[in-house]
Amino acid sequence: MSEPVTGARHRRSGGGAARRAERTAPRIEAAPFIRRKIPNYEILDDEGLALIEANADRVLEEIGVTFADNPGALARWRDAGADVRGDRVRLPKGLARSLCATAPRTFIQRARNPERNVEIGGRSLVLAPVYGPPFVRDMENGRRYATIADFRNFVKLAYMSKWVHHSGGTLCEPTDVAVNKRHLDMLLAHMTLSDKPFMGSVTAPERAVDSIEMCRILYGADNVGLNCYMTSLININSPLAFDATMMGALEAYALAGQATIVSPFIVGGAMAPVSVAGTLTQVLAEAMTGIAYAQLCNPGCPVIFGAFVTSIDMNSGAPTFGTPEASKILWGAGQLARRLNLPFRSGGALCGSKLPDAQAAYESANTLQAALLGGVNFMLHACGWLEGGLVSSYEKFVLDADQLGVLHSLAAGVDLSENGQAMGAIAEVGPGGHFLGCQHTQDNFKSAFWRTELLDYRPFETWAEAGGADSMALANARVRRLLTEYEAPPVDQGVVEALEDFVARRKASERDAFG
Amino acid sequence: MSEPVTGARHRRSGGGAARRAERTAPRIEAAPFIRRKIPNYEILDDEGLALIEANADRVLEEIGVTFADNPGALARWRDAGADVRGDRVRLPKGLARSLCATAPRTFIQRARNPERNVEIGGRSLVLAPVYGPPFVRDMENGRRYATIADFRNFVKLAYMSKWVHHSGGTLCEPTDVAVNKRHLDMLLAHMTLSDKPFMGSVTAPERAVDSIEMCRILYGADNVGLNCYMTSLININSPLAFDATMMGALEAYALAGQATIVSPFIVGGAMAPVSVAGTLTQVLAEAMTGIAYAQLCNPGCPVIFGAFVTSIDMNSGAPTFGTPEASKILWGAGQLARRLNLPFRSGGALCGSKLPDAQAAYESANTLQAALLGGVNFMLHACGWLEGGLVSSYEKFVLDADQLGVLHSLAAGVDLSENGQAMGAIAEVGPGGHFLGCQHTQDNFKSAFWRTELLDYRPFETWAEAGGADSMALANARVRRLLTEYEAPPVDQGVVEALEDFVARRKASERDAFG
Repeated sequence: MSEPVTGARHRRSGGGAARRAERTAPRIEAAPFIRRKIPNYEILDDEGLALIEANADRVLEEIGVTFADNPGALARWRDAGADVRGDRVRLPKGLARSLCATAPRTFIQRARNPERNVEIGGRSLVLAPVYGPPFVRDMENGRRYATIADFRNFVKLAYMSKWVHHSGGTLCEPTDVAVNKRHLDMLLAHMTLSDKPFMGSVTAPERAVDSIEMCRILYGADNVGLNCYMTSLININSPLAFDATMMGALEAYALAGQATIVSPFIVGGAMAPVSVAGTLTQVLAEAMTGIAYAQLCNPGCPVIFGAFVTSIDMNSGAPTFGTPEASKILWGAGQLARRLNLPFRSGGALCGSKLPDAQAAYESANTLQAALLGGVNFMLHACGWLEGGLVSSYEKFVLDADQLGVLHSLAAGVDLSENGQAMGAIAEVGPGGHFLGCQHTQDNFKSAFWRTELLDYRPFETWAEAGGADSMALANARVRRLLTEYEAPPVDQGVVEALEDFVARRKASERDAFG
Repeated sequence: MSEPVTGARHRRSGGGAARRAERTAPRIEAAPFIRRKIPNYEILDDEGLALIEANADRVLEEIGVTFADNPGALARWRDAGADVRGDRVRLPKGLARSLCATAPRTFIQRARNPERNVEIGGRSLVLAPVYGPPFVRDMENGRRYATIADFRNFVKLAYMSKWVHHSGGTLCEPTDVAVNKRHLDMLLAHMTLSDKPFMGSVTAPERAVDSIEMCRILYGADNVGLNCYMTSLININSPLAFDATMMGALEAYALAGQATIVSPFIVGGAMAPVSVAGTLTQVLAEAMTGIAYAQLCNPGCPVIFGAFVTSIDMNSGAPTFGTPEASKILWGAGQLARRLNLPFRSGGALCGSKLPDAQAAYESANTLQAALLGGVNFMLHACGWLEGGLVSSYEKFVLDADQLGVLHSLAAGVDLSENGQAMGAIAEVGPGGHFLGCQHTQDNFKSAFWRTELLDYRPFETWAEAGGADSMALANARVRRLLTEYEAPPVDQGVVEALEDFVARRKASERDAFG
């Protein structure tokens, strides 16, 4: 049992040294998480919401959910007053909702650099990159299996992206590392190559435990019980099924006071009814149940009401993205989450396109806009998602990340101050004049308009003479530049060694498993 | 004076015959205009709106507007109680608003095929294609000056586009036809190659008169006084200037009972202050003044409150599109128009990109989404706009037109009927099952999800084997197919001959003018 001792030693020295190092870190440009000053879009009225809530209660009471291979969960549910038969759990009306009440409305997820701490819930919006693809694509090399080298590149890109607040989790699957060990390499990359907050592993309960242990090394063991350092993604096996793997990870995180996103993962028409209202009913029943279960494990632990919902192409069976049905479900789910006083996760730069082309951008923009207005608090897949989540795209990562700046500016709302009203400028310029030279413009032009760092605003002739690059080519150039210019944020070397030591020993303790 | 007589003869026979022909027309798929069942997005609260309204009143009272070279307009304003000095018109507080009150809240613009009539105002949304570019672009031939052949192609594409309700106006500038005659060829194309409603010419008062005269031939002279057959675009010379050309066209249309869109055309920072609130103040002052003037000309004539506002790149001076500031102004202007009980025009698939690439699509989708939620009633430039409006793009036309289907589906809202609730399906499938085969899915799958007619939903392997086309290539193939398959809607040959005769005689009566 040398691990905890080694860990503790480095933890103690590492904690203070890391903090000192961070104070002298070279500053990259990083926007704070969004604090919305604009209203949410509410597609349903109170009557519609009450109808869906009543239906969700009926689903939980009459149909119930399953917690398979999880006797501990069934015992918890029985103790809480549920009707448990076999692995089927039926919840009396109102039970799930009342259990959700102990979850915090907002919480802080801390980062290695305190300036990168994020508040999740309320009127905030935290943007995190793509999660989960087994493939990557870039302009030079096309589509290929992702490796740990790709993973590290994406950590670097997220770190350098001004409008991305979070390092995310499985930015791509490092398929060149054994399945039972890749979480260690991924966490090490998040912890050392970035200073933004990150997500823990959920693919097995013991990998969640590893994630927590690595946080204890990074942040100090005592702190992990007191603060939230990870927000991890717990998918529900929709419809209405909670498997032991995901629930095991949820239990580990809940007991350690770490946040989880409890998220139905729904391709509408396959894992839920083809209708918006039916899907919302199921989403609410599932999310409430998972969140209630987290609160049964550890009342007060931070959770997020998740809704990953897309539609299906009934001709081919393919999942489709950026569709109107998905936006409607996002808006409705946001309203339902707010009525539970819970942080809400949905959205992302989702698309089905195989390339970062116009299709990808229409589909992504449709969902990004919907998510901002729909009150999303935590947006996974905010950049880099391609091909229905099968591919992490280098070029799309920077294209999406640039568009996230649009969300920041929209969320700032309308300045109605005297300066914002600009009555002096209108009087100064008068009929037929122009504003370019007036005092108000000179005083405000630097911050007046959001400006891309990537898209092309040049006149046609200038652009054509320079080669007439399309968005993909511009994005490729930006990726290359960012990866060349990347410098790691300072980190205490003792902590790095302790983390590396932990990873080496955990890797040595198991045989490689693939698949 | 043979023109009216010839016109009248054909008009009379044409009216009935055209109606008969339309009854036997081969049916193309054409969605009716959108009737919103979803709420509008309201970015400003009542206090903010009242502040901007008070500021706009102050602008009109203290600064005023100019009506240059237009003694008739100055006389009308004087009679209405305005303070007129030189060409400067100052409006006492509340005058503009009270004059706007005679404008209808909604009106019907009639089409040659009555099934294509559109209602403008209220909860409706009418989608019209790009307006004004001097260039066109397609994949084979790149960027080039537009010709009348291009113009006719775009009329055909708009006619064949299911989600496009309107044939628009200057789909591109036919630069191979003299400036003083091209309106005749454009109107002839709208009237004969499509049966959707269209816009009249505004580039000179006499061209508005020609447009009205051609409608008298097409629809019957008596009908033109009774019904609205054209909605035409009157831009204001922002800031606060109303030129005699545009006002002359407005006067002609207003007196003939034809609709006009009174629209500030603003590149923020150049023609208006760099702030959102300042721009909204100016937009309101300008639109109210123009609409009030139309009501002075002919109380009760149909008008639309327009707001074409974009921002500027302060580094290069280039106008920029799909930006957050433009969306905020669109939302605010929609609220201000609704408080005047006026139909609202804004939005479009606006972009600055030189190609129909990811940039074009992000920017376009940003504005399309904002316009739907912002309560736009008439959306010009809903498809085909490229390069800041300098180019009508064939490929982008069909890409955008496909995305307009998303708006239709979003606007339909959430079905909360028993079928929409799908409680039977959730019970039938149960935990861990799947919905693909259940009865509810079978009963609803055909209409459950919006489906693209253009974008690619195939799996990677299938798509790659088929050549791995990007969106531009897919769009190009669709353009070619639509133009090959095009069949003109039936039209009375007597009317066509009368229109052609009118065009020939009007062309013969003037020398060609270019520029």
